[in-house]
Amino acid sequence: MAAQAIVAPSRTPLDPGFAAALAQRFGAECSFAEAIRRQHGQSETHFPETLPDAVVFAQSTADVVDLVRLCVMHRVPVVPYGAGTSIEGNALPVRGGVSVDLSKMDRILAVNAEDFDCTIEAGVRREELNAYLRDTGLFFPIDPGANATIGGMAATRASGTNAVRYGTMREAVLALTVVTADGEVIRTARRARKSAAGYDLTRLFVGAEGTLGVITEVMLRLHPIPEAISAAVCGFASLQGAVDTVVQAIQSGVPLARIEILDDRQIAAVNAWSKLDLLEVTTLFFEFHGSPAGVEEQIATVAALAATNGGGDFAFSNRPEERARLWKARHEAYYAALNQRPGAIGWSTDVCVPISRLPACILETKRDLESCSVPATILGHVGDGNFHVIFALDPAAPDEFAEVSAINARLIERALAMDGTCTGEHGIGIGKQPWLEAELGDAVDVMRLVKRALDPHDLMNPGKIFTL
Amino acid sequence: MAAQAIVAPSRTPLDPGFAAALAQRFGAECSFAEAIRRQHGQSETHFPETLPDAVVFAQSTADVVDLVRLCVMHRVPVVPYGAGTSIEGNALPVRGGVSVDLSKMDRILAVNAEDFDCTIEAGVRREELNAYLRDTGLFFPIDPGANATIGGMAATRASGTNAVRYGTMREAVLALTVVTADGEVIRTARRARKSAAGYDLTRLFVGAEGTLGVITEVMLRLHPIPEAISAAVCGFASLQGAVDTVVQAIQSGVPLARIEILDDRQIAAVNAWSKLDLLEVTTLFFEFHGSPAGVEEQIATVAALAATNGGGDFAFSNRPEERARLWKARHEAYYAALNQRPGAIGWSTDVCVPISRLPACILETKRDLESCSVPATILGHVGDGNFHVIFALDPAAPDEFAEVSAINARLIERALAMDGTCTGEHGIGIGKQPWLEAELGDAVDVMRLVKRALDPHDLMNPGKIFTL
Repeated sequence: MAAQAIVAPSRTPLDPGFAAALAQRFGAECSFAEAIRRQHGQSETHFPETLPDAVVFAQSTADVVDLVRLCVMHRVPVVPYGAGTSIEGNALPVRGGVSVDLSKMDRILAVNAEDFDCTIEAGVRREELNAYLRDTGLFFPIDPGANATIGGMAATRASGTNAVRYGTMREAVLALTVVTADGEVIRTARRARKSAAGYDLTRLFVGAEGTLGVITEVMLRLHPIPEAISAAVCGFASLQGAVDTVVQAIQSGVPLARIEILDDRQIAAVNAWSKLDLLEVTTLFFEFHGSPAGVEEQIATVAALAATNGGGDFAFSNRPEERARLWKARHEAYYAALNQRPGAIGWSTDVCVPISRLPACILETKRDLESCSVPATILGHVGDGNFHVIFALDPAAPDEFAEVSAINARLIERALAMDGTCTGEHGIGIGKQPWLEAELGDAVDVMRLVKRALDPHDLMNPGKIFTL
Repeated sequence: MAAQAIVAPSRTPLDPGFAAALAQRFGAECSFAEAIRRQHGQSETHFPETLPDAVVFAQSTADVVDLVRLCVMHRVPVVPYGAGTSIEGNALPVRGGVSVDLSKMDRILAVNAEDFDCTIEAGVRREELNAYLRDTGLFFPIDPGANATIGGMAATRASGTNAVRYGTMREAVLALTVVTADGEVIRTARRARKSAAGYDLTRLFVGAEGTLGVITEVMLRLHPIPEAISAAVCGFASLQGAVDTVVQAIQSGVPLARIEILDDRQIAAVNAWSKLDLLEVTTLFFEFHGSPAGVEEQIATVAALAATNGGGDFAFSNRPEERARLWKARHEAYYAALNQRPGAIGWSTDVCVPISRLPACILETKRDLESCSVPATILGHVGDGNFHVIFALDPAAPDEFAEVSAINARLIERALAMDGTCTGEHGIGIGKQPWLEAELGDAVDVMRLVKRALDPHDLMNPGKIFTL
């Protein structure tokens, strides 16, 4: 990603005593080098580079405990970092401090196949987890596209293509190990499938973006690999027809595993990037999970709905390698969108609305994009009412930022007017902060009370979600 | 329910100025009469009667706002009350104050059938909601047995017979309207199916038992009534065989809608109470939801598993009225258990363990009950690893309380040793407080930080879940 100007966080220089203590405790796992700091000061999207003062590569929960205690003693921010794939600037150290890189905490600690759960360190990535699980007959369904760390996915309450069937990280996480802002280690729940024992701290930390503590271990719910899996694509004569098919399929109660939209421009970008030859029209990508008979039933229902809405034939990808190729293309849609314009910077936004409002929301957005001078594509996890717009910005054209900024604001206001949310799955980070109060009103004050209580010095990923 | 001695909460008498202000604001909807206070100072189980100083019947969120503000100004506890069906003393005003009865807030505010959601006032009961929904083709699946209010179910994170398929109140609640401890009204989320916007306040209030604020409205996720529903019972030669069938069915990934166990003694009690003639052996009650073909597949798989574990033939109840009779008997199991001993007081406890540990947990518990002098039955939502023991205590025999208390402690310690929870679905209330720290350790301190931040005067259902 092309970098913009380095932003110096508005803070005093790193205290030499603190720096020495860090170096002494973490040795080679602590770095002050600009190259390492820059790596941890960038995001995949349009936010300016913002360097941490130091990077610590944690190897264990005990490392994180010592780091948090040291940082709190010296009043230095702690910013968790996983794979760096977040979208709303969630891991940028906007007030400097230490970027705690959890990617070396990549051990799979336990798989309880008979209970459909596993416990992993926060730095395990979802693709590696699924590779590890393959022989157990189980899989971890949450799939945001990027090969993110599970800790990062928990922190941002990620979801993605499978959420329509399997839920989001909210449902997938059974328990967390968290290092709190006073350097204590807590485990938020036991391994029972359900519990009514006290406040749901698991769900409090899921989606808190590291602002209440650092997630170091995650217990996850797994699912059996379905007996039959079938994937298909279907092109539509109109965007309206495609979206109506989604809404009708969901309203019919078909237990779709995936139902994804890519608009005509996104399909053109995918064709170019992933060497596919899809018809360049709005297209739905489907995946059906179940028993062989169940999958056939689902396909028949959805194909009939598609046909009445101007859909073409279903092109199936049933062999695992074909299916993998199809979903790889879907997952690389972001890079495909940027590739439309060499050297472009990406701006990816998302909203989520009640499914009945999805046609209006997506069609109005498409119209708004017609006059946009920046290449822009629509894609999304439409079975949840969730979609994205990706803009490929020219880094040398500041006017484009202003133009996209205005379109993004209109998109969010449109979603909020439909009782939707300003972010279905990216989190608030820094990018969506202007709309959090518009969405949730005085509830944000309650969030602030929680934040102040759990992190009184405002050192846990400060400046994210809201300011105090 | 036979009442024990009236417990006078340890508090100063109600300030006459406060009483006058209550009466002025709420008129006939406020009562200081002992009969009304006694009604709100009892529970369905073994906890001593504990009277509130006053009862206010709220008609609206605005009523609750005014009540909370008045109570906070006078430092008087506020204890929400729904249907009074909670099990762990969750609604008992252990420090006196005002019992705020929400049962008159029973309006269904909106049903969005196309989005599978509805919004209701907290006092709506689940059976009334399902009766209202019948013509929409949708239903609200969470079913704790009792015809509880939805607000109370949210506050205790209730679940019940359908949770194995449809989840608990954690998954069922999309958003809440809450009156906070400073008398503000917040709405915790928009109507979108998912969101990554800030802290998950919905899940924070679900299960908080009214200790962080009063839930006045609930937005719920609904589900389509399945095309085919089939219910069956199957008796087993041994408890072990029945539990093994459950574990194997769950591990096979069969999407069971209900799988309930009732031990031999519970079946005998149900036969007597509900005029059934079931074979008096450990029995599983099943319900299968899906397409007609899907239901047939599920039944075939489960029947084969049952047969290898000493199960008898499946007795089906496929006509709606037969099915209703079967589940009514299951729902009245608590009253059936008490009926074993006229005048008995009930003590109902529950634990939940990982499914692989369920056979050991339930068999050891059954052995522990063999020498118990109090009639005791086992039943539960075993697909989740969750089961209950119901004791029918003689109110005139204090030794029985001590005996049951010791068995209950052993049950909980057994579940905790298996990485389970001291309460799968009843909440902590007052009854499970001795084990919350054993279960969650320092995480309870984090809960206390949240409580102090959101309710600094400790007036929202004080003394529940933990003490400060």
